[in-house]
Amino acid sequence: MAISLLSSILYSHFTMSAASTVVSITVFITLLCVCLVIGHLLEENRWANESITSLLLGLCAGLVTLALRKWKSSHILVFDEELFFIYLLPPIIFNAGFQVKKKRFFRNFSTILLFGVFGTLISFCIISTGSFFLLKEIGITSLKIQDVLAIGAIFSATDSVCTLQVLNQEETPLLYSLVFGEGVVNDAASIVLFYAVQSLNFNNIDALTALKLLGTFLYLFSTSTALGIAVGLVSAYIIKKLYFGRHSTNREVAIMLLMAYLSYMLAELFSLSGILTIFFCGIIMSHYTWHNITERSRVTTRHAFATMSFISETFIFLYVGMDALDIDKWKRSDGNLGTTVATSGTILFLVMAGRAVFVFPLANVANCFRNEPDAKIDLRKQFVIWWAGLMRGAVTIALSYNQFATGSSSKQGAFFVTNSIIVVLFSTVVFGTVTKPIIQALLSQNSKSPNSEDNAVSNLDDIHLLFLENRRANEDGNNTRSSLGMLLMNPTSTIHQFWRKFDDKYMRPVFGGRGFMPYVPGSPSSATEDNV
Amino acid sequence: MAISLLSSILYSHFTMSAASTVVSITVFITLLCVCLVIGHLLEENRWANESITSLLLGLCAGLVTLALRKWKSSHILVFDEELFFIYLLPPIIFNAGFQVKKKRFFRNFSTILLFGVFGTLISFCIISTGSFFLLKEIGITSLKIQDVLAIGAIFSATDSVCTLQVLNQEETPLLYSLVFGEGVVNDAASIVLFYAVQSLNFNNIDALTALKLLGTFLYLFSTSTALGIAVGLVSAYIIKKLYFGRHSTNREVAIMLLMAYLSYMLAELFSLSGILTIFFCGIIMSHYTWHNITERSRVTTRHAFATMSFISETFIFLYVGMDALDIDKWKRSDGNLGTTVATSGTILFLVMAGRAVFVFPLANVANCFRNEPDAKIDLRKQFVIWWAGLMRGAVTIALSYNQFATGSSSKQGAFFVTNSIIVVLFSTVVFGTVTKPIIQALLSQNSKSPNSEDNAVSNLDDIHLLFLENRRANEDGNNTRSSLGMLLMNPTSTIHQFWRKFDDKYMRPVFGGRGFMPYVPGSPSSATEDNV
Repeated sequence: MAISLLSSILYSHFTMSAASTVVSITVFITLLCVCLVIGHLLEENRWANESITSLLLGLCAGLVTLALRKWKSSHILVFDEELFFIYLLPPIIFNAGFQVKKKRFFRNFSTILLFGVFGTLISFCIISTGSFFLLKEIGITSLKIQDVLAIGAIFSATDSVCTLQVLNQEETPLLYSLVFGEGVVNDAASIVLFYAVQSLNFNNIDALTALKLLGTFLYLFSTSTALGIAVGLVSAYIIKKLYFGRHSTNREVAIMLLMAYLSYMLAELFSLSGILTIFFCGIIMSHYTWHNITERSRVTTRHAFATMSFISETFIFLYVGMDALDIDKWKRSDGNLGTTVATSGTILFLVMAGRAVFVFPLANVANCFRNEPDAKIDLRKQFVIWWAGLMRGAVTIALSYNQFATGSSSKQGAFFVTNSIIVVLFSTVVFGTVTKPIIQALLSQNSKSPNSEDNAVSNLDDIHLLFLENRRANEDGNNTRSSLGMLLMNPTSTIHQFWRKFDDKYMRPVFGGRGFMPYVPGSPSSATEDNV
Repeated sequence: MAISLLSSILYSHFTMSAASTVVSITVFITLLCVCLVIGHLLEENRWANESITSLLLGLCAGLVTLALRKWKSSHILVFDEELFFIYLLPPIIFNAGFQVKKKRFFRNFSTILLFGVFGTLISFCIISTGSFFLLKEIGITSLKIQDVLAIGAIFSATDSVCTLQVLNQEETPLLYSLVFGEGVVNDAASIVLFYAVQSLNFNNIDALTALKLLGTFLYLFSTSTALGIAVGLVSAYIIKKLYFGRHSTNREVAIMLLMAYLSYMLAELFSLSGILTIFFCGIIMSHYTWHNITERSRVTTRHAFATMSFISETFIFLYVGMDALDIDKWKRSDGNLGTTVATSGTILFLVMAGRAVFVFPLANVANCFRNEPDAKIDLRKQFVIWWAGLMRGAVTIALSYNQFATGSSSKQGAFFVTNSIIVVLFSTVVFGTVTKPIIQALLSQNSKSPNSEDNAVSNLDDIHLLFLENRRANEDGNNTRSSLGMLLMNPTSTIHQFWRKFDDKYMRPVFGGRGFMPYVPGSPSSATEDNV
């Protein structure tokens, strides 16, 4: 009796759809816990990382579900663009901005833009042109020009999530800031390209189309950045004014969290790039807002934001792994095994070629403007940059669903969705597995150099100490060279000096920031941070 | 051109439903930020609190939406049971368990159970019987016996969320632990009662029905508690074994968060009471798991969990406020203004009467078993307990929707939903506003007593200091009375001593906990905590 009463309680408490929500949430949370434990145990292992663990665990879980349902359907949750773009991506990108080493990021800003914008454009052109000619050879002739361009945009989106796990900010700071910074700009660039391709009218293409695309991109880039900076500054101002003398840790943390998310949602609302907006909002928050809150709030935000991002990352890979075994999709696809392998192989080849074509030339272009010998991107580093950006991830799958799966139930659509999944799985598992050993092998002599003080900067106290030391070193340093001469000699670092002066004089008094500590630029301290 | 391209990007990026999701999330997050700021500014105000602020702000926002849509519809989000039970309630209850002062809670455990279980049953009977007779007088004659019993269960659910904001754990510890502890048990009891009423077959009621209900309740209570304790212990064991010597703050925080949520979802999956489960999971986690993690993880979990709970609370009240102006519901309701006011008034009267009937007698029953003069619940405290439990909140609305709004579009259903909303709004705003002043007026002499050391215990360092002092005090204290004599003299405190011995000998060596610090019970330290 108790049991029948209970089962009737179950079904009245939640409707059928809600009951299945409970089941799928339970399964996902259990798998997440398992991923965390396995990831921790494998941390010392040079081949594995959390992305690969969760991808493989997702595959296994999908297989088990498939077997339990007698090979009929595997998906507990179908891949959902909304879930991905509204809930999972924002914490990851926000945390990246919040934890990024700002000095290094902005010192490499021009190189990052070069890779992120022109690199993505070059990669888009190569992959589009390549698939236009090569896919015909395989026997896929029914592709429209729009589909080909969409494929170019879809496979130009690198996976910044996996990059974060493979490269280490402490061990290889220059590479990390270049590859990850490129990844953020690339996300925005490829998403903008994709939606631009979808919205263009291909019946009357003229010379203006390319110009319009460029204009849209520049407009989106500048407005998104401005919005992120504005929201970040508002949060700093609110917390500085409101909490003066009377702090409430919960409210401070809540305000930071909510305003960061608000910046992303506002960007989406105004159809800007939410990724860029929340990234810059994170940077501003760590530069101003974070210094206005209590010590306990600082520790909490640092670790709580990192944890949220960590859970989202693991969830995404688990999700992609489980989604890969969605049997309906494989059945609907019209390609036989040979065509599928050929197509995936072609796309993978184009991805590698498209990235090679821009990384090596652009790195040499960038080297012309990088004067310090330490800052040069040598051939080894170029190789690592090329390799670390080959992985494709959830953005690729989300865009591919958007182009090929929504609305139409065509066989060709299902065929390209399965190919996207194959490319993502293969690149993440195979490229991802060998990346760590490759980096270690190529850069082993550098990481052992006595100059890598960054290894020591592992907790907040150390960072504070470092700042104090820098400051002392700065005060001893000379500051006699003329500004104009320096601007010509070393443009990035001079802009940085002007920015510091402006920041100290106008920004920090209004928005707070590290205790108005006077900062004297142009000193040996510049050298202590950027030696990879 | 750029704008038309952009608008086409907007509509291709998100489908229409997703675009409306973006709008509603943006509105809600903006309102949450405003609530936080206003709540902070009003903190010193004796009349206002965050619940009332967000409720009123939600009402205003609903009004603006209504005006913008030309008085056609107000809801941006319709009240959704799933959102409430799956996402908003768990963090609140978990945090309550995690932050509750365990000693005080368990010392008052028998009193809490008395209020929570028998009190809820008495209140249920009074409200059901009362509405059976009184609603006929008003002119509502078509109520089925099941509806009347459901009304009893729906309005027996007190609002533990609002209670948390009105009472202060530091200032009035005994009252806080009694009222809040009762609230948690009451949540479980009224939800169990409600689903039991829904599932009973009213065609053949016999004497066994009441017995079955009691059996179900006891079964649910014990299994839910056991599940929460089990998951909490597993989390402590995993973190103790896995992270020994090598800590990762992100993984520790993520494991605690995920396992807590897992306990809730498992309880829902096995159709137990998720609220009870996650509450006990929180208690176990703060007793064992929390002591196994790094100092940084401790600060992060304390504040991150509190922030999550805080955001959920504010969100719920905002949500209820906005939902109240849902014009469709008001139109569908068949009652005229007079009937509506009369019904709401009757229900409010029954709520007050039903609570008075059990609080005062049960408090006197409890006093018979409370030997120390400090621990007695005098008439003033009884009045506060009665008053602080009068507020009705989101659980009432969620259950009311479940009973009256799902499936049927009947006029009577809409009528009772609107009445529930009126009761919730009125009790929260009116009773909530006067609660703080009433408590201050009634208990002013107590809170000024020099014994209230608890005020000082506001941060973690102080707690550590306090424990060290207690320990020293304990070692000086006498421990000569016989165990049996003490069990008869003071049963709760003796059980507590046995538990401490068991904990030190068997539990802590396996599951971790405050550094195996030897604890000698039966000493002056017991007195330092419970003087209200």
